[in-house]
Amino acid sequence: MPRITADEFNALMAEDLPWAHQGGMRAERIGRGTAVLRQPYTERMLRPGGTVAGPAMMALADATMYAVVLSLIGKVKLAVTTSFNINFLYRPSPADLLAEGQILKLGKRLAVVEVTLHSEGHGEPVAHATGTYSIPPKAEQKS
Amino acid sequence: MPRITADEFNALMAEDLPWAHQGGMRAERIGRGTAVLRQPYTERMLRPGGTVAGPAMMALADATMYAVVLSLIGKVKLAVTTSFNINFLYRPSPADLLAEGQILKLGKRLAVVEVTLHSEGHGEPVAHATGTYSIPPKAEQKS
Amino acid sequence: MPRITADEFNALMAEDLPWAHQGGMRAERIGRGTAVLRQPYTERMLRPGGTVAGPAMMALADATMYAVVLSLIGKVKLAVTTSFNINFLYRPSPADLLAEGQILKLGKRLAVVEVTLHSEGHGEPVAHATGTYSIPPKAEQKS
Amino acid sequence: MPRITADEFNALMAEDLPWAHQGGMRAERIGRGTAVLRQPYTERMLRPGGTVAGPAMMALADATMYAVVLSLIGKVKLAVTTSFNINFLYRPSPADLLAEGQILKLGKRLAVVEVTLHSEGHGEPVAHATGTYSIPPKAEQKS
Repeated sequence: MPRITADEFNALMAEDLPWAHQGGMRAERIGRGTAVLRQPYTERMLRPGGTVAGPAMMALADATMYAVVLSLIGKVKLAVTTSFNINFLYRPSPADLLAEGQILKLGKRLAVVEVTLHSEGHGEPVAHATGTYSIPPKAEQKS
Repeated sequence: MPRITADEFNALMAEDLPWAHQGGMRAERIGRGTAVLRQPYTERMLRPGGTVAGPAMMALADATMYAVVLSLIGKVKLAVTTSFNINFLYRPSPADLLAEGQILKLGKRLAVVEVTLHSEGHGEPVAHATGTYSIPPKAEQKS
Repeated sequence: MPRITADEFNALMAEDLPWAHQGGMRAERIGRGTAVLRQPYTERMLRPGGTVAGPAMMALADATMYAVVLSLIGKVKLAVTTSFNINFLYRPSPADLLAEGQILKLGKRLAVVEVTLHSEGHGEPVAHATGTYSIPPKAEQKS
Repeated sequence: MPRITADEFNALMAEDLPWAHQGGMRAERIGRGTAVLRQPYTERMLRPGGTVAGPAMMALADATMYAVVLSLIGKVKLAVTTSFNINFLYRPSPADLLAEGQILKLGKRLAVVEVTLHSEGHGEPVAHATGTYSIPPKAEQKS
């Protein structure tokens, strides 16, 4: 069982991640060490050429990593990204983005997560990201 | 002389980068291979702990890289990020973010850019990013 | 069918990649868009703590990416790494390293590759890397 | 004053980093939070096209980051790289490589370091790397 459910993560976004919640981002499924998040398409996400801009993909990837980490350690809100890397593969057409994240390593102090992003309806991934999260010591974990 | 001015880049954001423009992002200075952009603080940028979220920094860094590239090649809107890496150094307090970008390499097909982000009023940088941009062949460069 | 076989890639390493060949690195399997390379353990690879050093993993990952790219475009020796990112997951014990690479995207000008590294005999991966390769225009591709 | 000198770091490489020492790598200068390392040119470093291979640059960048971290925390041998990113800018001609590293952030648990690499005799940098190091808790720091 994951230590945070999709509903709980969506509630956390509504309360604490306005940049994600206001854009309509939501968790669809969370497992133990995995998460699937969706970013519904809005015109706000566009860039020249009529494709979806990089930062929309970065934001979705980062939130997905957060969900993956919390699925393993519970609602430790102060877990924070320490590094983030993304490769853009194809320019996404104006459509919903879907992100699938999975844990690569969970340590006591660091977690490493991988995320693959798709544009809904397309087979090839549009981006691939990895990131590291710093997990605070127990004493700091009261949220 | 840069091949795009701060005013021209701000007009481009207003027209073509809604995610940047609607949040109030603006270019303050653009030189030849350099750019300074500001992201005014809004509550939308927050994350748990009351600090500014990673994606707000990523978006500002990415737009700054775009400005640096266009300062050298002109208004080639289809230049696109191919990879992006960011290290988070300090959690930014709720304040404007300032990004300083500079070119590391301009090739015929790829440009590499470095960006340092500060939280206004703080000496230490809050994040450091690098990214590569793919420059389209001449034939594709009509914007 | 891959456009370079494991034997051909090993011959290329013997001729053109002395840093890989002299350390005993070899391709075990190459498919279309995939490659498995092995770095036999030597004491030269150690770091303090008696584990295998990061650069040994980086070198194996980079050679594996090269094999993956050549499996798709043939013996285009001047394909070069343009960016490379690696996350270290577990400290590898003194044992052979095995790298599995797979293509994430093959474009006309850029290829993106993912590599997972294992320490032989251990289930968990020790590192995960991604990289981009620049593919030279046809005119430059005589090797 | 740095907490490790260039001589002390060279002795550490001779004892504990055979992959660096055997190739002739050496520290030229270490300051507080800065380090300059040199990799003398050898044919072992070549790749197709007669330029210096990526892994030679990665190894030098990684050792330089280690020197920068130890310049601030002393001879804590078990500080380890957790993530590493490098952008290749120009193909280095067959010549010595020089790396200049500087600290971006020193935290209690993580350090972030930036390294710029030059090919001796050339003005433009050949590569730019960033990396994060995990600093072990005090109890583990006996080397």
